[in-house]
Amino acid sequence: MTPPVGIIMGSQSDWSTMREAATLLDELGIAYESRIVSAHRTPDRLWSYGKEAAGRGLQVIIAGAGGAAHLPGMMASKTRLPVIGVPVQTKALSGVDSLYSIVQMPKGFPVATMAIGAAGAANAALMAAGILALQDDALAARLDAWRDALSASIPESPTDE
Amino acid sequence: MTPPVGIIMGSQSDWSTMREAATLLDELGIAYESRIVSAHRTPDRLWSYGKEAAGRGLQVIIAGAGGAAHLPGMMASKTRLPVIGVPVQTKALSGVDSLYSIVQMPKGFPVATMAIGAAGAANAALMAAGILALQDDALAARLDAWRDALSASIPESPTDE
Amino acid sequence: MTPPVGIIMGSQSDWSTMREAATLLDELGIAYESRIVSAHRTPDRLWSYGKEAAGRGLQVIIAGAGGAAHLPGMMASKTRLPVIGVPVQTKALSGVDSLYSIVQMPKGFPVATMAIGAAGAANAALMAAGILALQDDALAARLDAWRDALSASIPESPTDE
Amino acid sequence: MTPPVGIIMGSQSDWSTMREAATLLDELGIAYESRIVSAHRTPDRLWSYGKEAAGRGLQVIIAGAGGAAHLPGMMASKTRLPVIGVPVQTKALSGVDSLYSIVQMPKGFPVATMAIGAAGAANAALMAAGILALQDDALAARLDAWRDALSASIPESPTDE
Amino acid sequence: MTPPVGIIMGSQSDWSTMREAATLLDELGIAYESRIVSAHRTPDRLWSYGKEAAGRGLQVIIAGAGGAAHLPGMMASKTRLPVIGVPVQTKALSGVDSLYSIVQMPKGFPVATMAIGAAGAANAALMAAGILALQDDALAARLDAWRDALSASIPESPTDE
Amino acid sequence: MTPPVGIIMGSQSDWSTMREAATLLDELGIAYESRIVSAHRTPDRLWSYGKEAAGRGLQVIIAGAGGAAHLPGMMASKTRLPVIGVPVQTKALSGVDSLYSIVQMPKGFPVATMAIGAAGAANAALMAAGILALQDDALAARLDAWRDALSASIPESPTDE
Amino acid sequence: MTPPVGIIMGSQSDWSTMREAATLLDELGIAYESRIVSAHRTPDRLWSYGKEAAGRGLQVIIAGAGGAAHLPGMMASKTRLPVIGVPVQTKALSGVDSLYSIVQMPKGFPVATMAIGAAGAANAALMAAGILALQDDALAARLDAWRDALSASIPESPTDE
Amino acid sequence: MTPPVGIIMGSQSDWSTMREAATLLDELGIAYESRIVSAHRTPDRLWSYGKEAAGRGLQVIIAGAGGAAHLPGMMASKTRLPVIGVPVQTKALSGVDSLYSIVQMPKGFPVATMAIGAAGAANAALMAAGILALQDDALAARLDAWRDALSASIPESPTDE
Repeated sequence: MTPPVGIIMGSQSDWSTMREAATLLDELGIAYESRIVSAHRTPDRLWSYGKEAAGRGLQVIIAGAGGAAHLPGMMASKTRLPVIGVPVQTKALSGVDSLYSIVQMPKGFPVATMAIGAAGAANAALMAAGILALQDDALAARLDAWRDALSASIPESPTDE
Repeated sequence: MTPPVGIIMGSQSDWSTMREAATLLDELGIAYESRIVSAHRTPDRLWSYGKEAAGRGLQVIIAGAGGAAHLPGMMASKTRLPVIGVPVQTKALSGVDSLYSIVQMPKGFPVATMAIGAAGAANAALMAAGILALQDDALAARLDAWRDALSASIPESPTDE
Repeated sequence: MTPPVGIIMGSQSDWSTMREAATLLDELGIAYESRIVSAHRTPDRLWSYGKEAAGRGLQVIIAGAGGAAHLPGMMASKTRLPVIGVPVQTKALSGVDSLYSIVQMPKGFPVATMAIGAAGAANAALMAAGILALQDDALAARLDAWRDALSASIPESPTDE
Repeated sequence: MTPPVGIIMGSQSDWSTMREAATLLDELGIAYESRIVSAHRTPDRLWSYGKEAAGRGLQVIIAGAGGAAHLPGMMASKTRLPVIGVPVQTKALSGVDSLYSIVQMPKGFPVATMAIGAAGAANAALMAAGILALQDDALAARLDAWRDALSASIPESPTDE
Repeated sequence: MTPPVGIIMGSQSDWSTMREAATLLDELGIAYESRIVSAHRTPDRLWSYGKEAAGRGLQVIIAGAGGAAHLPGMMASKTRLPVIGVPVQTKALSGVDSLYSIVQMPKGFPVATMAIGAAGAANAALMAAGILALQDDALAARLDAWRDALSASIPESPTDE
Repeated sequence: MTPPVGIIMGSQSDWSTMREAATLLDELGIAYESRIVSAHRTPDRLWSYGKEAAGRGLQVIIAGAGGAAHLPGMMASKTRLPVIGVPVQTKALSGVDSLYSIVQMPKGFPVATMAIGAAGAANAALMAAGILALQDDALAARLDAWRDALSASIPESPTDE
Repeated sequence: MTPPVGIIMGSQSDWSTMREAATLLDELGIAYESRIVSAHRTPDRLWSYGKEAAGRGLQVIIAGAGGAAHLPGMMASKTRLPVIGVPVQTKALSGVDSLYSIVQMPKGFPVATMAIGAAGAANAALMAAGILALQDDALAARLDAWRDALSASIPESPTDE
Repeated sequence: MTPPVGIIMGSQSDWSTMREAATLLDELGIAYESRIVSAHRTPDRLWSYGKEAAGRGLQVIIAGAGGAAHLPGMMASKTRLPVIGVPVQTKALSGVDSLYSIVQMPKGFPVATMAIGAAGAANAALMAAGILALQDDALAARLDAWRDALSASIPESPTDE
C-alpha cells in the first residue's frame, strides 16, 4: 500500500541529511517510502513519480537536493500534492545555492522550503505531520505530544558539560 | 464561521505583497480572513491567535513579514497547524534578512517558506490550496484547472511588445 | 528547416533580455528559432524539446531563466547538445538566485553559464557562434571580423559626453 | 535576590558561546542569572520572563541565539529593559542568519546587537557593564580598570611563538 | 548643561537618517546634542569628544556612519559610556559594509548595533531611552506609554489604500 | 599532433581540481594537453597560447583558476575558440571570487562557466565532449553511453552505508 | 612629456566614475593622461601600455573596471609600477563582482584596491598623490593642505537642508 | 634609524598572516619595523604612530586587521603616507567583514587594500616595494628580478604529486 509520505532525494549522498526526516516520521508513526529521484540523471523517473503521485495515494512529498537543486521545484511542477523542499548543505556555497534554487520558485509552483541541512530535514517531517494531522486526530495528538515533550525537555539553566 | 485559511502579516505595509495571496485564494474559491498580527508590537495578539487557531477551525496560516521577520516562526511555535511563511522584500537587504529569519528555523518548528515578495505570496495561497485539496476533491479539481490554465496560457514563442 | 540554434526562455518577460542573443545571432548571420519553454509551467514541452533537439538538427541551445532557474539545467539533462545558460536579473536577488540555479550543476550535466542579464545573453550568441565556427570557416571569418570590429571601435581616450 | 543581569539563550548548545558573557561578568563582579529560554520551544517561559523582568529587578538582558534567532527580538517586545543580542555562529550560514534575525528589528523594538560568536558574547557583558556603570561608580572604576589592563597587555611588537 | 544623549554622525549626509533618532528622543522628552564627528576627517574631534564624554555628563552616545563606518567603534574605544551604532545605508553595498564595520567589534569594545537605516536610527533612540529609564521612573513611564501607543495603533486587519 | 582539447590552469595547485576534467576526457576517449598558464605570472605564455590555439588545431580550451581568476576571460580575449571556465574553490571566499571573476564577462568575450570546484571540472570535460560530438558521431555515441550509464547507476532507494 | 599618472579604464562608460580621479588630480596639480584600455577588447593595447609604462616615465597607474574586472590585475602583471584599482559599480551585482575580481589577486601581483564607485576613484587620485609626494615636497604640502581643508570643512553640527 | 616600511597589526594573532609581508620584505632587502597597534585597545599608540610617521622617515605603512578592521583606515586619517591594508581572515565571516571595513573608505582617505589573508600580506610587501622602487633603481632591479624568478618558476605542465 502506498504510504502517505514520499521522501525523495537527488542522490545517495543526500541520505545522511534526509534520514533525519525518515527518523522523525518513524517517531511520529507516519509511513513513508524513500526513493532516489535525480532531476538530471533520472528525469523520466521524476516525471513518472510526479505524474503518479496523487493517483497512487501519496499525500505529501519531501524532496531534498543540493547545489542547482532542481528536484523539489520540478516535482512541484508535475503534481498538485504539497512538496516540501530541503536544501542540502554544499561544499563551496554551504547550501545557499540549494536554498535559492529551491525557494525562489515562480508564481504557480510553490515549494515549502525548510532550513538548510539536518534541521530542515527533520522539520520537513514535522511539516508533513502537520499537514496530515488536519485529517487525522490521532496523529494530531501524537504531534502535540511530540511538541510538548520537546518543550518539556528544555532545562531551566545551561550546564557545563 | 472560521474560514480555513488565515492570512496574517506584521504590518499594513506588508499588505501590498500579501494581497497576492488573498487574490489567488479568491480565484480558487477558498475562504480566508486577513489580520495584522505583529510579533513585536502585538505579541499577545500573536499568542492568542496561535493558541486558538486550531480550535477555531483554521487549517492553514499564511504569515508574511519583513526584516527580522519573527511572525511566521513564532506562530509555528504556538500552533501545530501548517504555517506558510512569505519573506517580504526589504529596502536595505532586499528580503534576504526576511528569508533567513523565516527559513532557518530550528528542529521542531517548521515554516513552509516561499519566495521573496509577490511571487511568494501568490505561491503561499497555492500551497494552502494544495494542502486543503487533500480533503476536498472539488478544490483539487479547481487547483488542477488553475494549473492547466496557467500552462495553457504560455505562448509558443516570445513576441516583441 | 531546423536552424542550428534554439533560443528558449522561461517566460515572455525574459525576452527583453534574450533578444540580445537573437540580435547578435542576426548580426553574425546565424539562423535560430525562439521558443518559450517553461520548466515548471510547460514541463512536457521542455521534455519533448530536449528529446527531439539533436534529431531535429539543432546544434546549440541557449536557455535563459530567472529566479529558481531550472530550465537550462533540465534541458541539459534531456539532450547531449551544448546548453548555454543565461541568468536573467531578478527583482529581489538581482540574479544571484538565477546564477546559482544555473551554474551549480552536478557532475554529468554541464550548463555553459554566462553573465547575469543582457551582456550574458549577447555572449550566449557569441559562444554559440564560436562552437558552430568549429565546422564553418565562413562563420569563423565573420566571428573574427565581429571581434576585430569591436576592438577597433574602442577610442584611445574617454570623452565627456 | 534578583541579579541585575539575566543571560538567556535558546538552547544548551549556545552555552559554549554565552559562557564568555558569564565569565566576563564574573571578572567585573556583576551578578547574573543564566537561563535557557527558547523562543520556539518554551514561548510561555519567554513570555513570563519578559513580563516579569523589570518587576523582578533585572536591569539588562543578554540574549544569545542562532539561525532564525527570534529570542532577542521577542524579548525586546516583552520588556522595556535593554536587550543585548548575541548572534551565535551557525553551521551552514556562519551566523549571518543569526545576525540578520537579531539586528534587523523594526522601529519600536531595538536589540543591541553584538558581533557573531564568542567576541560578541564577551562584549555583551561589557555593554551590560557600561550600562550598569551609569549608576554605579565602583563598577565604572572596575570597568575602567579592566579596559586599562586590556590596553596595557598589548605588547609593542609581535613575536614568533 | 550637557544633555544625557549625544548623537554623532560621520557627515552631514547621514543626518537624513539620524534625524529619526532625534525625532524620537524629542517624542520621549529626552534632551540631546547632535554633532558631526568624522572618524577620518576630524579624528581629533572624535578623540576629544570621546575623552570628555563621561566627564561632561553624557550618558549614552548614538553614532551613525556608513561604508567603512569606523566612528561607532572608535568612539567605543575612547569612552566607557554605552555607544549605540547605526549603520547608514550605502549606495553600492546597501549598508552591509556599514553593518559589518560596526557590529564585528573585537572583544573589549562593544557597539550596540541597530538595524540598517532609518528604523535603526529610531531604535537607537529607544535603546537610549531604555538605558536612561533604568534611573528615571518618569522616563520609564513615558517609554511604556510610547510602546503601548505603538501597539494600540495596529489595526485588526489590513486595508486597501 | 595537437589534441582537440587544451586544459590550462593558473597554477600547479589547481591541478587537484582540474584533474577531474582530464580523467573524464580519458573516459570519453578524447585527447588533450594540460598546461600551466598563469595570467599574471606568465602573461606572455597566455598570449602565445591564445594566439596560436586555433592555428595549432585546438578546438576547445578548458581553463581553471581561483581568486581573481583572470585566465579564462583573458584567454577568451585572445582566441575565438570556445573557452570553458572552471572556478577553483578558494580558502577565504569559497570560490565566489573565482566564480564572479570568470562568469561576469562583458559583451564580446563569453566564458562558458561551470560549477565551483571538482564537479565543475568534470563538467567542463563533458561540455567539451558535447561540443566536439557535433562533428564526431562516434564521440556522440560514447557521450550518450556515458550519460546512460550514469543514469543507470542510480539505485531506486537510498541505503544506510 | 609623459605625466606621472596614467588613468586607464575598460570602457567609455567607466569615465563617469573615473572622472572623479581626474578631477582630484587636477585639484592637486598632478599631470595625468587618460586612456581606454580594455583588457578583453584591446589586449594588445594593454600589453604595450604595461610594457612601456615604466620606460615612458609613468610612475603610478590608476585602473578602473567593472564586472569581471581584469584590467587592473593584468596591468599589474605587466609592470612593476604601483597599480591602483577602482571597482566600478555594476548593475546586477553592485560592484561586488568588480571588487572581488580586482582585490583577490594572487601572491606576486598586488593591486591597491579602492572603494567601489566614485569615492574609490577620488581616493585613487589621493593614493597616487601620497605615493608621488614621497619624492615631491611641494606636492606633499599641497596634499596636506587638501586634507586640512577637508577637515576644516566639516561643520560642528548637522543642519536640516 | 627609521626603516622605510612600518608593518602594524591589530593584535599578536594577526602576526601569522602579517609575517608573510615581513618575509617578502626580507627577500627584497627592504628594512622594516613591526608593531602591534590596536585601533581600539591602544588608540593613543595609533595616534602617535600616525602623527610621527612621516616625520620619523617612514615612507609606507602596511596595516593588517580583522573583523571591524579599523586600523588601516584610522591610520590613513592620521598620515599622508601611503597606507596598505591587509584584511585578515576571520572565523565567522571569512574576512569579508575585514575587507569591507578596510576597502570601503570615504573620499579623502584611501587605503590600498590587498587580498584577504596571506596572499594579501605578501602582496602588501610587493606594493610597498613598487612604491619605494620609484626612487630606488637598485630596488627596482631587485623587484624585477623577483618577478622574473616567479615567472620562471612556473612549470610548463602540471604534475601529479
